[in-house]
Amino acid sequence: MSERTDVADWWRTKIIDMEPGRIALRGHPVQELIGNRGFAEMIWLMVTGEEIAGHRARIFEAALVAAVDHGPQAPSIAAARMAATCGIGLQSAMATGLNMLGDVHGGAGEQAVELYRRAEAAGPQALVDTLDLWRAEHGRFLPGFGHRFHKPVDPRAPRLLALVDEAAAAGEVPGGYADIGRAIEARLAAERGKPVPMNIDGATAVIYAELGCPPPLARGFFGLSRSVGILAHAWEQTEQGGRNKGPTPPAYRWTYDGP
Amino acid sequence: MSERTDVADWWRTKIIDMEPGRIALRGHPVQELIGNRGFAEMIWLMVTGEEIAGHRARIFEAALVAAVDHGPQAPSIAAARMAATCGIGLQSAMATGLNMLGDVHGGAGEQAVELYRRAEAAGPQALVDTLDLWRAEHGRFLPGFGHRFHKPVDPRAPRLLALVDEAAAAGEVPGGYADIGRAIEARLAAERGKPVPMNIDGATAVIYAELGCPPPLARGFFGLSRSVGILAHAWEQTEQGGRNKGPTPPAYRWTYDGP
Amino acid sequence: MSERTDVADWWRTKIIDMEPGRIALRGHPVQELIGNRGFAEMIWLMVTGEEIAGHRARIFEAALVAAVDHGPQAPSIAAARMAATCGIGLQSAMATGLNMLGDVHGGAGEQAVELYRRAEAAGPQALVDTLDLWRAEHGRFLPGFGHRFHKPVDPRAPRLLALVDEAAAAGEVPGGYADIGRAIEARLAAERGKPVPMNIDGATAVIYAELGCPPPLARGFFGLSRSVGILAHAWEQTEQGGRNKGPTPPAYRWTYDGP
Amino acid sequence: MSERTDVADWWRTKIIDMEPGRIALRGHPVQELIGNRGFAEMIWLMVTGEEIAGHRARIFEAALVAAVDHGPQAPSIAAARMAATCGIGLQSAMATGLNMLGDVHGGAGEQAVELYRRAEAAGPQALVDTLDLWRAEHGRFLPGFGHRFHKPVDPRAPRLLALVDEAAAAGEVPGGYADIGRAIEARLAAERGKPVPMNIDGATAVIYAELGCPPPLARGFFGLSRSVGILAHAWEQTEQGGRNKGPTPPAYRWTYDGP
Repeated sequence: MSERTDVADWWRTKIIDMEPGRIALRGHPVQELIGNRGFAEMIWLMVTGEEIAGHRARIFEAALVAAVDHGPQAPSIAAARMAATCGIGLQSAMATGLNMLGDVHGGAGEQAVELYRRAEAAGPQALVDTLDLWRAEHGRFLPGFGHRFHKPVDPRAPRLLALVDEAAAAGEVPGGYADIGRAIEARLAAERGKPVPMNIDGATAVIYAELGCPPPLARGFFGLSRSVGILAHAWEQTEQGGRNKGPTPPAYRWTYDGP
Repeated sequence: MSERTDVADWWRTKIIDMEPGRIALRGHPVQELIGNRGFAEMIWLMVTGEEIAGHRARIFEAALVAAVDHGPQAPSIAAARMAATCGIGLQSAMATGLNMLGDVHGGAGEQAVELYRRAEAAGPQALVDTLDLWRAEHGRFLPGFGHRFHKPVDPRAPRLLALVDEAAAAGEVPGGYADIGRAIEARLAAERGKPVPMNIDGATAVIYAELGCPPPLARGFFGLSRSVGILAHAWEQTEQGGRNKGPTPPAYRWTYDGP
Repeated sequence: MSERTDVADWWRTKIIDMEPGRIALRGHPVQELIGNRGFAEMIWLMVTGEEIAGHRARIFEAALVAAVDHGPQAPSIAAARMAATCGIGLQSAMATGLNMLGDVHGGAGEQAVELYRRAEAAGPQALVDTLDLWRAEHGRFLPGFGHRFHKPVDPRAPRLLALVDEAAAAGEVPGGYADIGRAIEARLAAERGKPVPMNIDGATAVIYAELGCPPPLARGFFGLSRSVGILAHAWEQTEQGGRNKGPTPPAYRWTYDGP
Repeated sequence: MSERTDVADWWRTKIIDMEPGRIALRGHPVQELIGNRGFAEMIWLMVTGEEIAGHRARIFEAALVAAVDHGPQAPSIAAARMAATCGIGLQSAMATGLNMLGDVHGGAGEQAVELYRRAEAAGPQALVDTLDLWRAEHGRFLPGFGHRFHKPVDPRAPRLLALVDEAAAAGEVPGGYADIGRAIEARLAAERGKPVPMNIDGATAVIYAELGCPPPLARGFFGLSRSVGILAHAWEQTEQGGRNKGPTPPAYRWTYDGP
């Protein structure tokens, strides 16, 4: 009934088509994808609508692998572990952690893609100006650089950049963003007189920039990746047991400084 | 200072070890994992602490691929699309959808693993009794079977079971849970006089049972898988635009049946 | 168009009716409620559809006031404070905390209402049997009793029960649940040889039982109440500042006990 | 041990102090608050650390009452109803809805407080310039004004403003923000040649501005208020039943417009 398509149109999508007994994802019958696509390839296909293969698939998978966890001091991991002791399901504990990946905690990847693109458009001679302008607009921290713990090097960054170099050498990504990332890292070290290492957001942003991702997807893909560590920790905590786990051992309280 | 380890011990973990410049995940330096492990392999390693390879890796990856999406009529997908129009970050929109994967919406995988294990322990001759006893305890629906839309067959189930058959023929999984799943499907069809198809929870539960997963991980892995579709839809909605998207076009209101 | 009411009927409700320029909540024009109802009265009206006044309103408001906070060692409060440093909105930080109020962390109120009703039906002579049967079914902890910190008395419980006594003396609640609560507390103290104090879930459950609430609403109302503390702490943390606040000071790490 | 206060200091707070058997909230023993403070007064005390009474308490309570619900077409309410059918707890269903109250869906209150303060600082003669400058910076919509449904008047706004007028007449709030709100509404109507009604965000922002709230608390208080409607709808849906409730009746699907 053509006059009633308004309700169906409200939920229109290019992602999935279904009839009873048939499911097609991005135009592919689901049974042809199962067993023939890797999970990382499937993620790219679902989110972008395009195929990914070869070196492009390899660096995308590397970005997903690299960001899975940074330990229980990270607020998202800590919160998921605490949630796992509160009597909610494992998925809700995962959601608790995932929900905390905001602008400050993982959001820098999106901003770093934008910074790299601006640096690419301005050209290498203008890098110092590009960085200064960014800081004039956004404040003194450059997204994707600096780590309060991993000094002088975050071990994930050089490995990810080496894979990008390989992909560029094979002609499968345009190249250049790894150079931009390294140039920013060098500039920051020169300015500060000490290393300001490229962090996980900065390194994966190189990959996402090379792959042509819209910047917000850097956040989304980080969310998928870190959800793995969140699940691993929530499950480990479940097996360890505990009820209403707080942030510190129960013998510790807090300092009250009120009236 | 040994007397202060209580605070560190409160967050003890076997998953991750770190020092400045060093990150080891399940005992592997992160830079050795990056580029050398697939994302699905990494998920298994992080969550279970064990390696997965060969046919075992293949069926695990197939389970992850199979469950990514079931369209915007699913409450988790619909909610994530609506959330994407409300001015929260992409990760928070993902968390909104993930948080809805409760006992009813995806939780059946965990229960199906338990049902299969009970059926395996009781043996094939006792299948009818096993099913009757389960229903006496839990109600008339068997977890993992029946679909309000995909009739007579959910296309994901036979494909996933065929991959399990291959893995069993290669001697890499014990085998038997695929048979149990098919036997339950046959029994239900005989009881009802019409197909009661194995659904995505029932089919992936066969895989998780073959892999020796603790039942709750069937929920956790489903959460990771469906998060892909949730991200894809949240991002598509973001690109489509919209503000405060409701469940139906704005011209539709609701039926008020109060005082 | 009568043939199209299926879409509107899918979202039918007795709670709210609207036309352009008109909003009625539970049958009352919103402008008549504004300025004429207290917030607690409004909560009761919205959720139950009924009016509340006098002593009944007073004890309901007392239950809401009593449960607002238990400090940053509570996982919900700690998580909300951490979330407030991650770059998500204040409401998302609130949702992070609220989502953690599961079966273990606040869910006991619902169970305690059920326990009290069972004890009321069985009568005071059968109390010991009622408690033993409950523990045979549910495990050794009785919901609503025992506190790992407040010993020998949780100061909220006697005050809340005194207000229930006043309401019963005025004939506005049936009475009896406060007695049941006190009798359970006395029985537990006799069994263990030390106080097992009625906690906030047990004390507010007395009120919800007196008011005739369906048990799950004890959870829902607790969620509204604790959301106040969650907001207060998330806001205080926002003003204190911090980025990616973890559970312990950064100098503390975790104990790694893996391979 | 003074050398160990770093752990306790990490969670320092002015909100709550505790010892076994003692709980003090903002300096008040909890048993003195229970039964002596209204829930709205308690919210203000907990969040701001200050007392509220008289007309100030009345307009704060009015703001909380006014915003509780806007029906199941609102994405937060719809999502909470869907969540209630997915097998997660009532609090998690509430969190699902609350998490969706982002910049677009309720965040306008915070922005409106900022707009009003700017208008107040610039003075009434400069109102047109103030509004033009705001729109040059933020886009063509002014926060707190305009409603796609309630035309020509949102019934909540004039009632809330009338209460503010009373409070100002009594000398308990400085006054002036209600005038600013009305002046903006008049200016917009003149510009567009049709009413652009002050909406719930704009009206409650007048109250929060009069009370001297930091702008972000307009978001937080809205979250508390709307949580009431979210709970009411989640509970009504629970009682109606349903499993995996989607956004439209199951007979409706979505329009597929992909490859």
